[in-house]
Amino acid sequence: MTSVTLVNGGLTDQISVYDRGLAYGDGVFETILSVDGQLIFLDQHLKRLTRSLSQLKISPFDVEALLPLIQPYLKSTGQQIIKIIVTRGIGERGYAPPETIQAHSIVFISDKVKTTVAWATKGIKAQICATRLAYQPKLAGIKHLNRLEQILALQELAGTDCQEGIMLGYEGEVIEATMHNLFLVKNGELFTPDLSECGVAGIMRTFITEYAQQQGIPVSVSRVEVAQLMEADEIFLTNSINGIWPICELGNTRLEIGEVTCLLQDKVVDIVNSHD
Amino acid sequence: MTSVTLVNGGLTDQISVYDRGLAYGDGVFETILSVDGQLIFLDQHLKRLTRSLSQLKISPFDVEALLPLIQPYLKSTGQQIIKIIVTRGIGERGYAPPETIQAHSIVFISDKVKTTVAWATKGIKAQICATRLAYQPKLAGIKHLNRLEQILALQELAGTDCQEGIMLGYEGEVIEATMHNLFLVKNGELFTPDLSECGVAGIMRTFITEYAQQQGIPVSVSRVEVAQLMEADEIFLTNSINGIWPICELGNTRLEIGEVTCLLQDKVVDIVNSHD
Repeated sequence: MTSVTLVNGGLTDQISVYDRGLAYGDGVFETILSVDGQLIFLDQHLKRLTRSLSQLKISPFDVEALLPLIQPYLKSTGQQIIKIIVTRGIGERGYAPPETIQAHSIVFISDKVKTTVAWATKGIKAQICATRLAYQPKLAGIKHLNRLEQILALQELAGTDCQEGIMLGYEGEVIEATMHNLFLVKNGELFTPDLSECGVAGIMRTFITEYAQQQGIPVSVSRVEVAQLMEADEIFLTNSINGIWPICELGNTRLEIGEVTCLLQDKVVDIVNSHD
Repeated sequence: MTSVTLVNGGLTDQISVYDRGLAYGDGVFETILSVDGQLIFLDQHLKRLTRSLSQLKISPFDVEALLPLIQPYLKSTGQQIIKIIVTRGIGERGYAPPETIQAHSIVFISDKVKTTVAWATKGIKAQICATRLAYQPKLAGIKHLNRLEQILALQELAGTDCQEGIMLGYEGEVIEATMHNLFLVKNGELFTPDLSECGVAGIMRTFITEYAQQQGIPVSVSRVEVAQLMEADEIFLTNSINGIWPICELGNTRLEIGEVTCLLQDKVVDIVNSHD
């Protein structure tokens, strides 16, 4: 079995056309890596899911109840990707939700494709996208289903040999990549953009930030300008599935996979191997 | 029959969980009024649908082919609402669409509920929402499926007796209401906000703008400040389903349903009655 979908716990690949996830992108999602049947950073994912649902005022939803649904489909060897969508539920036409509404869960379980693993060791090519991220502090940080900006940005990469696109905020500062958070290293210090106006606050981003600080690497979470990015010693991207992808080409600029990147990558590999 | 749903022309109320409309809000929609079996402003809706699909680079989709699907369910007397969603289609996990993908259509046909008709004659209460519209010129104007901002704004009205909420842009200027465009009248002139950074360019908004100009009423499409709104002689909201809703209370400010609003309402009623 390579792919399973569950809707509210039942094995099916169909949902109601009245689901507000379809109508308005009215929901959130999480993407979790499973290694040999262990869900990596599970607590952090469930906490962010709860926080995201609360930020959108989606009705109480027991995130813990997802686990027994997923468990039977986890493989004791190999890597899988568990994507969980939670929508506000079924509604009639109109943005205002009905007074009583029950959130819906959709779970996708699939094998992790091995072709992307090489990017962690080889590094990737990236370019800066023209599509920028709008400032919406009420949605910033959460992994909601309104993702047209990322789609427009990725369309810009068609016909290039880039694996990722870097997205700027409305004013032109660096925010993140379409599917990853972004870090840069300069003179042994780590910098990652502030996400209070836009962007997704990744689980791996938080982990890397905390772990680097524990290792005595200064970390600055602040506004990052394009000029800083272009003068960085190292740049890397992070997410829960890919871990760390170093950038080895950004436009015409070549970059080395440096010491700080390697140190952090070693830790991420450790975590995956020890199923922490 | 009060409600019918069609997915790619087939009678069903289920869609695939892999539809990118659900995953990312990757699609657009139109809401068309049918009166005695005639689709009002049909050409304008189909043109906007085509333009919106093209803006998102959704694969060629024959909007005209929707009509024979809808036709059998139109009633020869009474008003119906036809909502059409077109999504990019089915995709695997990941923001980047597959190379070959076929757009999906979902059509909802339902009777128009009479309870909202009174608001056109009585006028409505509105308030200004705290949730603002982010600036995203690449999505401005089109009726896409990323609608969390409108949902957050409408949640603010819970527990109030307001029928609509007015949304400001990121910098605090007036843009539109959650489900309607906005016009104000001052000294016989009509003003409606510029939508180049955010907002939905409504079919009724375009019609009202053009018709008012034909009637010799000066129309300004430009930045509108909250102070201008609070000092307006008349304010009204427009959309394809409700026509014109005058605002008679905005926060603590009471407003009359004035001459210009009535003149324009008469024309909209004419159009609906003559099935133009």
